[in-house]
Amino acid sequence: MGLDLGGTKCLGVVVDGAGHVVEEVRLPTPEGGPAVIDVLARAAAELLATDAGRQGAGRVGVGVPGLVDIDGVLRFAPNLPGVVDLPVAAGLSERLGGVEVKALNDATCACWGERAHGAAQGCHHVLLVTLGTGIGAGIVTDGRLLLGARGFAGEVGHMVVDPHGPLCPCGKRGCWERYASGSGLGRLAREAAEAGRSHRLVELAGGDPRDVRGEHVTQAAAEGEPGAQAVLEDFAWWLALGLANLANVFDPDRIVVGGGLITSGEGFLVPTRRAFQSLVEGMEHRPEIPIVSAQLGERAGAVGAAVFAATA
Amino acid sequence: MGLDLGGTKCLGVVVDGAGHVVEEVRLPTPEGGPAVIDVLARAAAELLATDAGRQGAGRVGVGVPGLVDIDGVLRFAPNLPGVVDLPVAAGLSERLGGVEVKALNDATCACWGERAHGAAQGCHHVLLVTLGTGIGAGIVTDGRLLLGARGFAGEVGHMVVDPHGPLCPCGKRGCWERYASGSGLGRLAREAAEAGRSHRLVELAGGDPRDVRGEHVTQAAAEGEPGAQAVLEDFAWWLALGLANLANVFDPDRIVVGGGLITSGEGFLVPTRRAFQSLVEGMEHRPEIPIVSAQLGERAGAVGAAVFAATA
Repeated sequence: MGLDLGGTKCLGVVVDGAGHVVEEVRLPTPEGGPAVIDVLARAAAELLATDAGRQGAGRVGVGVPGLVDIDGVLRFAPNLPGVVDLPVAAGLSERLGGVEVKALNDATCACWGERAHGAAQGCHHVLLVTLGTGIGAGIVTDGRLLLGARGFAGEVGHMVVDPHGPLCPCGKRGCWERYASGSGLGRLAREAAEAGRSHRLVELAGGDPRDVRGEHVTQAAAEGEPGAQAVLEDFAWWLALGLANLANVFDPDRIVVGGGLITSGEGFLVPTRRAFQSLVEGMEHRPEIPIVSAQLGERAGAVGAAVFAATA
Repeated sequence: MGLDLGGTKCLGVVVDGAGHVVEEVRLPTPEGGPAVIDVLARAAAELLATDAGRQGAGRVGVGVPGLVDIDGVLRFAPNLPGVVDLPVAAGLSERLGGVEVKALNDATCACWGERAHGAAQGCHHVLLVTLGTGIGAGIVTDGRLLLGARGFAGEVGHMVVDPHGPLCPCGKRGCWERYASGSGLGRLAREAAEAGRSHRLVELAGGDPRDVRGEHVTQAAAEGEPGAQAVLEDFAWWLALGLANLANVFDPDRIVVGGGLITSGEGFLVPTRRAFQSLVEGMEHRPEIPIVSAQLGERAGAVGAAVFAATA
């Protein structure tokens, strides 16, 4: 059984040995630590009440957004108001009568899920990035999940790629997720709209350039509008820049791109791959590193959490 | 037995079980692939002719500068003119009558050496950077060396940290090693000298700002000259920026700084640690990550190569 705690909803699944989701539950994410444990416990209880859930009982995995330590304590979760130092694993285990609970970062779970049953099957060195409000990452090296000394590894979104760039809520300037996330795409699009470089974007936003969002870019670019296409090229270049930085460091055999942004269209992966080729060190001396879309969609985190709990 | 092939010299050592160097040989590095294999074979032969070398025979490790693949082929070595696709492990093994040879990136070897017998003993998640002409890195995650899918992991020097920055010989702009390596320090210092921000630097360079080098900064800053101290602060900030990027990604329990630059004075580590604190994601929610100097000096790579060969 795997649970994925998001900023807006908690998704729970029971997965069979082949990775198929046989039961599923969705509950809205509430505010505050105790309420979060409550909703996780309710989701788990609903799944445990099913036939499949009863068979699989014994191990629960949870993916959570933020810095979660190796004891399953969520230390820092910028997208969950009121949640800090929340003992997710211990708290949920207690609520479930002592069932073993493993809590990991959500993107780490997604990477483990895509490797087990999705876009990175058979790969031993995987970099997965999830493009949403920010950028999360899960990393597999030599067939094992990279967790780091305290479990905080994979915070790639706050890799600074331009110290003169826009201010990030974290306090630094030019973090990668200011450019290459869903909100980064929105920001690049609003800049273009406000500078008059794409009338179609303004039109799609209902007339106000400040209302332009990422999905307007995808739509206008698909229609062939040059201004929107230029925004998407720019976005793809920034995405490729960070992926190349990470590929130089990890030397993965596959890069998987997931998250909300990819579900609305993967057209931007074409210019991303092109820019990536020119940004990786010594590209002419190494085999190509494929950049592919995630396959498990919004269930990747919950599936990965389930697989991790079952096998760790 | 370990060999470390550098841009100017080849250093060979025989190491005992406690990590002490009991025999040592140095030979100048020649140009061209066949000559490089020759000099490695000569260094190994000299060591094998010693009592300690005879006892330790059977496994040889080699650290080489550049992208070396998991079969021990040096694919790309920007600092070794005329060397490309050189089968270091197989070539040296053949010259030594079939002795088993392991070839790894030199900074990877240094990391393994510092972890076994130097500044990172007992650490399971180590990031080591060597600051020289460029920036090399060796990374240990969960007690194991990070090599990557082809052995090319750890190319941190070409992580882009400012796309509007100075051009790098690799063709990109604003690679980290344009700022935080030995040559990066020299570049920052010449900028300051040419802009008239440090007369002492110009003086130490013999009157021409274009002749200012990194060691002049260290000396002038130690004398208390404000202009040179500002250069060193700037350098430390860039070093901290890249280290924080990597710490966000790896969550190490220790960072080790080595290479030629640290041997001429580690004063810059104080402002580096200060800047690092402000750049790591969620620093207030995690334990401090110590940034320490390497302990094995120029022998780190050769010692690490020997330890790796003996235990891998």
